Amino acid sequence: MSDAPFSALDHAMMARALRLAERGAYTTKPNPMVGCVLAKDGEIVGEGFHQRTGGPHAEVFALRDAGERARGATAYVTLEPCSHTGRTAPCADSLIEAGVARVVGAMRDPFPQVDGAGFARLREAGIEVGVGLMEAQARELNRGFLSRVERGRPLMRVKLAMSLDGRTALASGESKWISGPGSRLDVQRWRARSSALMTGAGTVLADDPQLTVRLGDDTDFVPPLRIVLDPGLATIHRGRVREGDAPTLYIHAPDARLPRNCDADMAAAPVRNGRFELDAVLRLLGERKVNEVQLEAGATLAGAFVAAGLVDELLLYVAPVLLGAHARPLFDGFDIQQMSERLAMRVVDNRHTGDDLRLLLRPVR
Amino acid sequence: MSDAPFSALDHAMMARALRLAERGAYTTKPNPMVGCVLAKDGEIVGEGFHQRTGGPHAEVFALRDAGERARGATAYVTLEPCSHTGRTAPCADSLIEAGVARVVGAMRDPFPQVDGAGFARLREAGIEVGVGLMEAQARELNRGFLSRVERGRPLMRVKLAMSLDGRTALASGESKWISGPGSRLDVQRWRARSSALMTGAGTVLADDPQLTVRLGDDTDFVPPLRIVLDPGLATIHRGRVREGDAPTLYIHAPDARLPRNCDADMAAAPVRNGRFELDAVLRLLGERKVNEVQLEAGATLAGAFVAAGLVDELLLYVAPVLLGAHARPLFDGFDIQQMSERLAMRVVDNRHTGDDLRLLLRPVR
Repeated sequence: MSDAPFSALDHAMMARALRLAERGAYTTKPNPMVGCVLAKDGEIVGEGFHQRTGGPHAEVFALRDAGERARGATAYVTLEPCSHTGRTAPCADSLIEAGVARVVGAMRDPFPQVDGAGFARLREAGIEVGVGLMEAQARELNRGFLSRVERGRPLMRVKLAMSLDGRTALASGESKWISGPGSRLDVQRWRARSSALMTGAGTVLADDPQLTVRLGDDTDFVPPLRIVLDPGLATIHRGRVREGDAPTLYIHAPDARLPRNCDADMAAAPVRNGRFELDAVLRLLGERKVNEVQLEAGATLAGAFVAAGLVDELLLYVAPVLLGAHARPLFDGFDIQQMSERLAMRVVDNRHTGDDLRLLLRPVR
Repeated sequence: MSDAPFSALDHAMMARALRLAERGAYTTKPNPMVGCVLAKDGEIVGEGFHQRTGGPHAEVFALRDAGERARGATAYVTLEPCSHTGRTAPCADSLIEAGVARVVGAMRDPFPQVDGAGFARLREAGIEVGVGLMEAQARELNRGFLSRVERGRPLMRVKLAMSLDGRTALASGESKWISGPGSRLDVQRWRARSSALMTGAGTVLADDPQLTVRLGDDTDFVPPLRIVLDPGLATIHRGRVREGDAPTLYIHAPDARLPRNCDADMAAAPVRNGRFELDAVLRLLGERKVNEVQLEAGATLAGAFVAAGLVDELLLYVAPVLLGAHARPLFDGFDIQQMSERLAMRVVDNRHTGDDLRLLLRPVR
């Protein structure tokens, strides 16, 4: 992907642009996170990041910050500058007008209205363009957006809390002390970056979660859509999942009886043998511009997504306790007969959240 | 415990002595690991560590190394110097004769024939003595020896390998790919430092392990005793556990029919309701000078030790795979009804062994 050699300075500047981009993690959805650094003679002369859908792009903030110093500068952008007129003017044109001499992009934007046209326009204007610097990191940052644009479905993250021996609750259903306060706060940060938080009717009935973001400070975030998978809409009239400042979407079976006088947002998804076709559910969410879904549900729904091969990330909080063999397992409905059917994953991240461990895992494809 | 203030230099020297002591991890059993550094004017003039039971103590190696430079030096010892004549002369006397000016000890030796007498003899000879520097680290190093001397039973470490969802094998018994080559080599190092490797008759029948140490290089080690818990001595005539260069001990029920013409080492331990009284088994091993036992067995025996509250350490290899709800659980026979009965542990160490995680956990007492 790289069509130019990159210097150590280029790497440092792109790393800075990536850090800036990440500052939009809670607020840019459904847009991607983008950061931009303008540098001249080894010094940063302007920087910015995309903050909100509908607001200025990263390049605009950086150009404003730099003013006249942008002339002759190198622009480092974590995603290809846009070339189409959307809610804002094309960023490629703004960079050309500002007299930028060189543009280094981490990656091409696969969004159909860009997809190479931004870099092409810059090159046509005589600007030196290098593409592919720290592309892996840039893809990691926007893995949800890229999943939606490239695969037509959101990135699916399954969040689970378990004991050391792989149990989520006692046989009685008691699940206290499965994770500690450090883990519970950490979950809120993952919620804040999610486009949607998904649960099932069973969890609504059993635990009645509100599924809102509670960061404990005044950090800005765009509230994730709350999604309840409820084939018969049995829970639509109850539950805290419709309370608070976040939208809620019920996904139901095509033959569900729709309630009257209900202002809840609802969508039908196909069902086979009494169970949702989960790939169709995800495609439906992709059409609704959902980049990242975080599933916070019980063993049945979590197991169904695993069995369907639709889990992109497993966010696993491990409390250092043993609960024994009669306690409830991590997944229901995910059973294998032979080792060759096992789901192999790799540990992407391993850290401690208080006394617990937090593992981020992805399937080995 | 500290009766003198310790300087940064003192800490650095004791840290070095602890590292030296650790070099005896595979060879000093049943003796404790001990390291000694002799320093004068901020420089190390001699150092040594205890290598083998029956061989010279750490102080002797360090004094030999220092020669005349020991006079006026400070001796840093990770365990109280001995004051009794055993297979070697008392180290306290050797330090006095060498003209050492000051002795800093990490901890008192609880061994009945020492237990403060070493430090007392040094003080009587006019030597300045400081005790308690880095005591926690020194206790950690010899936790097996200390368990035997202080509690009359070895430290009990349970080694298990499991999938992410807490499974040790498929329902069929297949357990391939539960841990990778990095973990399997790491297990050998833990075996090498163990005084004994314990398993059950069920594992002998199912897996036929040899339970020897295979480090893959020429590192020296004292082979750990292999222990088979076999109430009826059903496995005494078979199995690789009697092959190779290591002793094997069968622990059987008092009413077991002893085989004729069998040179195997056997010992009876009390049984209640058809199961060994595991605390009695451990006391028996303590009497046999076993410092650290590593249990490598199936879910039944592992679960029995957990249920009996006799697990001091859990060495858990976690392979990043999902095996599903029908696969075999980590423990059998350890079941709880209420969260208050849960076994709370803390993560003492968390690292990666190849693609796997390796966790060392200890119960929160």
